[in-house]
Formats: sequence, C-alpha cells, structure tokens
Amino acid sequence: MKPITSRENAHYKALKKLCLSGRERRKTGRAVLDGMHLIESYVQRFGAPEEIIVSESGALRVEIDTFLRGANSGNTIFVLNDALFDDLSLLETPSGILALVFQPRPHNGLNLTIDTVILDGVQDPGNVGSILRSAAATGFRQILLSADCAQAWSPKTLRSAMGAHFQIDIHESCDFPAFLASYCGQAVLTALDASVDLYSLELKGPVAWVFGSEGQGIRPSVANTEHLRIRIPMPGPTESLNVAAAAAVCLFETIRQRR
Amino acid sequence: MKPITSRENAHYKALKKLCLSGRERRKTGRAVLDGMHLIESYVQRFGAPEEIIVSESGALRVEIDTFLRGANSGNTIFVLNDALFDDLSLLETPSGILALVFQPRPHNGLNLTIDTVILDGVQDPGNVGSILRSAAATGFRQILLSADCAQAWSPKTLRSAMGAHFQIDIHESCDFPAFLASYCGQAVLTALDASVDLYSLELKGPVAWVFGSEGQGIRPSVANTEHLRIRIPMPGPTESLNVAAAAAVCLFETIRQRR
Repeated sequence: MKPITSRENAHYKALKKLCLSGRERRKTGRAVLDGMHLIESYVQRFGAPEEIIVSESGALRVEIDTFLRGANSGNTIFVLNDALFDDLSLLETPSGILALVFQPRPHNGLNLTIDTVILDGVQDPGNVGSILRSAAATGFRQILLSADCAQAWSPKTLRSAMGAHFQIDIHESCDFPAFLASYCGQAVLTALDASVDLYSLELKGPVAWVFGSEGQGIRPSVANTEHLRIRIPMPGPTESLNVAAAAAVCLFETIRQRR
Repeated sequence: MKPITSRENAHYKALKKLCLSGRERRKTGRAVLDGMHLIESYVQRFGAPEEIIVSESGALRVEIDTFLRGANSGNTIFVLNDALFDDLSLLETPSGILALVFQPRPHNGLNLTIDTVILDGVQDPGNVGSILRSAAATGFRQILLSADCAQAWSPKTLRSAMGAHFQIDIHESCDFPAFLASYCGQAVLTALDASVDLYSLELKGPVAWVFGSEGQGIRPSVANTEHLRIRIPMPGPTESLNVAAAAAVCLFETIRQRR
C-alpha cells in the first residue's frame, strides 16, 4: 500500500483531474469508480482494476478490508488521508474506496441486429445513468449516445447507473442516422406530437428506441428519417414526462409484450 | 417595481433563507418557484403569486416582460441586480424570474377512494420530482410522502417535477399504515423479492402504489401490513431499477390496463 499525503503529489493531481475533467477521461480512456458496489460490479465482469485508492478510515471498514485482502497482490493500492480522499469524491458521505479503471470498450463495433437504446442530446447525467440501469434490467445490451449527451463515464452517470455500465456496450459520440439507415429491426422515435400510440405497437422483433432531450426532443436530422414515431399516452392533466421515466415505460413495454 | 440592491436588505435575507432552508419553507408554508414554466403552471391553477422577483437582465427578456405586463397590478415585484438574483437561484443559467408562493394545501384531507402514490423514504429530490411528474401525466391526483422523503417544495424537487405540483394533492409527513388500513382500494407495494409479477396484476379499481427508498426498500412498519407485494420483472443481467423509473413503469401499466 502506497501512502499519498500531499495535494502536490503528481499522482494525486492526475487522479483529481480524472475525477473532474471529462476531457481527461476521454483522452486517457479511463474512469474512476466510487464505492464498493460499483467496483464489485466492475470486478465481476472485467477483473482487477488498474488501481485502488482508499482513505485511511475507509481501509479500516470491514467490507473494504475484506475486498483489499482478496484483491490480486499485483494491484496497486494507494492510501490517502481522509481530507485528500474526500476531495476526490462527489459523495456527501465518502465511500472510502475508489478504483481507477479503463473504460471497457465494445469489442465488435456497432451491432445492427440487436435491441438498442439511442440517446440524442440527453444532457442530465442522472437521466443517462437511470436509462442505462433500465436498459440493463430489461436486457438491452447496446446503447448509443450523441456527442452532446452527458458523459457516460462521468462520476455522476456512473453513480446513477449503479453498475449497469458493465452489462452494456456503450458507444459514445455516435452517428445515429447512419446506424438507423442500416439497422435490421424497427427504429422507434418517441415524440409528444406523434399520432401512433405506444400500446398499439407490436414489439416482438429487435427494436432501437430513440429518446431525445427534454427541451428540444429528437433532432430533425434524426427525426426526419423514415422511422416510426410514437407517443406515450398521458391521460393526466399534464403531457410531460422525465426522459428516464419515458425510457423505462418503453423498455418495460417491450419486455412485457415478449413474455 | 421595488429595487433591492444590497445583500443586507431584510427582505432579501428572508428570500435567501426560503431558498436554502427546508425548515423555513415548512415554517412559513411558502415556496420559491424558479423560471417562467413553473410560475405559469402555478398561475394557471392558483392565480397571482404572492411576490415576483426578477433580475435586471431578466426584466428585459421578452417572455418575462410580457408576463410582468400581464400580471395583476396588485402584485409586488422586486427587481434585483443580477449578482443578487443569481445567488438565489440553483440554476446554472439563471432564469431571471422567481415567484414566492404559498404551498397549495389539499383542501379536503386524505381521500381514501382515489388512485394514490405513496413514497416511503425516497430521499433524492430529483426522483421525488420525476415521480410527481409521472403521477400528473397518468392522472394520479394524490401523493403521500413520509417525513424522511425529500421535501416536495424544495427548489430541486420543484424543478424536477416541472409543474406537476400544481396538479396533485401533496401530503407530506404522512402516517401510511393508518391510511393503508382504511384505504378503499388495492394497496400494492413494490419489492425486489416479491413473488407476484406486476404484469399478472389486475389494476382496474383504485390503487395505492407504494414505493420505498432504493437502499432500504419499504419500511417493515409499512411492508408488514396485509397488502399485496409485487415485483417488476427484470429479465436482464441486473435486478435493479431507479425508483422513479420503477414508479413510471407501475403507473403507466395501470393506465395501459384501463384503456
């Protein structure tokens, strides 16, 4: 275990940059996982993280201590005093453990034949994380994000998705119209003003669900394709729905029909 | 229009306290609405707000200027310089307009015969807001929150619910077991380990949906009642769902069955 005691430590500065900067995460292809739940979800699928960072008080907790004892002896483990550690974490109650990992990359490029979720300009990281989680729960294995979506590998999105990142192939900065033009299934765009009703759809074959930003909806460059546009019926007094709630309704309707 | 130019102004201090303090909002029964969308949703249902607060640059925007000209001449309107205004708002891009309102109170107490949403310890204001929004979209008109839920009238919850607050009777700090014992409909509790499947339910009559916190689930004091427990089927590799996503799935399944 290597101690870090100063904010001026070069490795500490690099870690902090990764926690704060989306550009740095993209450049290095790395991400920081905060807390045992996320780290265990990663380890189950991909094995040991590149580095583990614990706080002095975190290292004393039974759950973390047990994990460290079980970790491969090849792991680099850094120990930070609590003040230094807390500055790296977004959580109000610090988890006591972080892991530095490579962002898992989809091996085989885009798959044109499987159920897919597509996000066009969804900017809230909590919503992107919630949609990743709903996708993992319903068995969707591929998600495409436009360049202006919230970063999938930001600490906020990771926290909100609760490990779903490690069950799904995530493609960021995607060219949707090209994907949709070649997609071997039904592409379905959600829109408040569409005339077709979600519950009149038949969703037995592969489907690519497209969700847009709450303000702008799906961009014309995507929406002007030939694909089906549907609306979620809302009998209440307001016709407005959080995008992650809308995605949950559509993804679960898909699996309901297939049972 | 009354100008406020100093942070030491007593009225400014009172406004800031209302924006920051849940206790203050409870004590005074007031809430602060941020932005034209929320304010217009309120005005449509309840008429003029108690006070309007605009920033100097906000007052120049066409949308806000038009609203101020149409506002009842009896309205008190305060104008703040932009720095003072920005300190009151949570938004990164300040809306330019706030309204001080009384929290609308349900007139008739708890209704034991209508569709109801019950939240037990849901602590994230974004989730509470998203659930309020799904409830308004599906025509649920009553929501009960336990004392340890996120405050319904906090700026974060209000922003996330996008005006749903003004379509629903909101009861905070509620005693659920007493309500559920007398409820004249079917109470349904969601739980990951329940054996009954959401899609096997018949949801034609009045229903009270109960959702718990993501960490703890529904408290034993509520869950140990005689009511039905169901799970949302998740065929994917992870059995975990954001609580607002789970609520959306259940509320929309209710209306799907009733069409």
